[in-house]
Amino acid sequence: MALAEAETTLPDPKMAQGGAFIDGAFVPVQDAKISVLDFGLTRSDCTYDVVGVWKGRFFRLDRHLDRFEASCERLRLALPLSREELEATLHRLVALTGLEDAYVSMTLTRGRPNPAAPRDPRQCVPNFYAYAIPYVWLANEAQQAKGLALKIARDVARISRRSVDQRTKNYHWLDLEMALLHALDDGADSVLLMDIDGNLTEGPGYNVFAYRDGVWSTPDTNVLEGITRGAVLDLLAEMNVGSSVRPMTEDDLFGAEEVIVTTTAGGVMPVTAVDGRPVGDGTPGPQAARLKALYWDKHTDPAWSVPVDRTA
Amino acid sequence: MALAEAETTLPDPKMAQGGAFIDGAFVPVQDAKISVLDFGLTRSDCTYDVVGVWKGRFFRLDRHLDRFEASCERLRLALPLSREELEATLHRLVALTGLEDAYVSMTLTRGRPNPAAPRDPRQCVPNFYAYAIPYVWLANEAQQAKGLALKIARDVARISRRSVDQRTKNYHWLDLEMALLHALDDGADSVLLMDIDGNLTEGPGYNVFAYRDGVWSTPDTNVLEGITRGAVLDLLAEMNVGSSVRPMTEDDLFGAEEVIVTTTAGGVMPVTAVDGRPVGDGTPGPQAARLKALYWDKHTDPAWSVPVDRTA
Repeated sequence: MALAEAETTLPDPKMAQGGAFIDGAFVPVQDAKISVLDFGLTRSDCTYDVVGVWKGRFFRLDRHLDRFEASCERLRLALPLSREELEATLHRLVALTGLEDAYVSMTLTRGRPNPAAPRDPRQCVPNFYAYAIPYVWLANEAQQAKGLALKIARDVARISRRSVDQRTKNYHWLDLEMALLHALDDGADSVLLMDIDGNLTEGPGYNVFAYRDGVWSTPDTNVLEGITRGAVLDLLAEMNVGSSVRPMTEDDLFGAEEVIVTTTAGGVMPVTAVDGRPVGDGTPGPQAARLKALYWDKHTDPAWSVPVDRTA
Repeated sequence: MALAEAETTLPDPKMAQGGAFIDGAFVPVQDAKISVLDFGLTRSDCTYDVVGVWKGRFFRLDRHLDRFEASCERLRLALPLSREELEATLHRLVALTGLEDAYVSMTLTRGRPNPAAPRDPRQCVPNFYAYAIPYVWLANEAQQAKGLALKIARDVARISRRSVDQRTKNYHWLDLEMALLHALDDGADSVLLMDIDGNLTEGPGYNVFAYRDGVWSTPDTNVLEGITRGAVLDLLAEMNVGSSVRPMTEDDLFGAEEVIVTTTAGGVMPVTAVDGRPVGDGTPGPQAARLKALYWDKHTDPAWSVPVDRTA
């Protein structure tokens, strides 16, 4: 990817709605497709990561790449790109789209079965692709201003870490999707799942925190170790506000003064109702507002973000 | 799909290695691709079914289609094809490939997110596709002659039905894949998983049966209700051999006279070792041989199979 002379990557108008790097080429996102035979689809045998770009800067790119590389290693998927190539590819991809605010996803799948040994995953050649699309908001502006109304799923349990390790970011979402469908039907904005033992876990694409008596708590296991979750823990340390990563139950939400969800698809967002019961006074609280403001401030802080390299 | 006059569908040489029906068109299987944005990939939010074609005849097509339609309904995915259209599409697809022995897969995914409501699965348009490729054998001839050596996974539990209902055929296979990798490393041919409570479940793509004291037993829950599993239960009834669908543990395997696995990708296959311990005398047994012979006989029986319609 290194060029003898640094040239500026100009946006490609065909990628204005999103671009992808797939099969070794940069293409408009609508042309980014994978084989229906890829085990990434037919076995959901793949891992991925999503990093945000805001005002032309990647947010905590290193942490996302560290996690992505660790996920690949846990699944025994050999990344066909070096760290430097991976980074250069993502920078060039975003530059080609011309997007200032983007949702940048990277995936490594097991690849297609080898006809000589169709049931041996070790015989596959892993398939890497990435795409950048306009920034995705888990909740729209009106929802965020009002605060989200969440439901706790009673009929579906989050997949146990004894089956699929949530630390490895994965596409095993049918539990989340079915619970989400039920919650949306009931008029909620989204849903939280408990594990098989009744401990609180996560929702579709986000972690949850509850605030009480000066401390923000978030579930410790059976959850993705979200980069935004980590950012909130770091911000709380900076703010000298207490935090606790621990087993939690629904009672921790019902007894909370404030609740937030955290995700790369929207950052820090207040929750003002759980199962139809108001959180605190039922409006977004001051602690959540402070965290949210600080979270977005960090997007232009060089210690937390890096500009898109338009010469990559 | 109905034509005024019945014309014979001639094989398309470009589909000799497999064909697909996708985005409303028939194409060579190597051109069958889905968007990297489809929730079928990014949420594994989809269901599928696989039916075998042997000597130019679909085996128990109705049962596969019944199950597929039931799976779609459970996931609240509206099939864009009527039963008649679905059937005609599969017949035409196989006819176009010219394959006499085929593995025919059909999938319905949630589809791509609607940009106006990117996190609402109800706003998606489901995406149907199917493909037919040369018949896939879970185990090769040498493995089948010798009998399979299976390992029982100790470090990964099968995803609980409280999270993802295995009756709905799905691509949530990371637990099976990781267990399979470990088993292959240990020199086994494949792997069986237990559920979180230690009950025997299934392996990657197959059900398991154990024979003892005149009765074949197979696990009752946390398993796919395999069509081949059902065929074996029906054959046992025909043969006046006892069968039992019940909770099982690894001890049922260690104490068995014979063990088989059942799958559309190869039918009935004998297992001659579990965790390195011989099953019975360590060679394929007579009960398994009888079942296997009868299973393949049924592939030309009009009560169990239907010829590929080359005028569909």
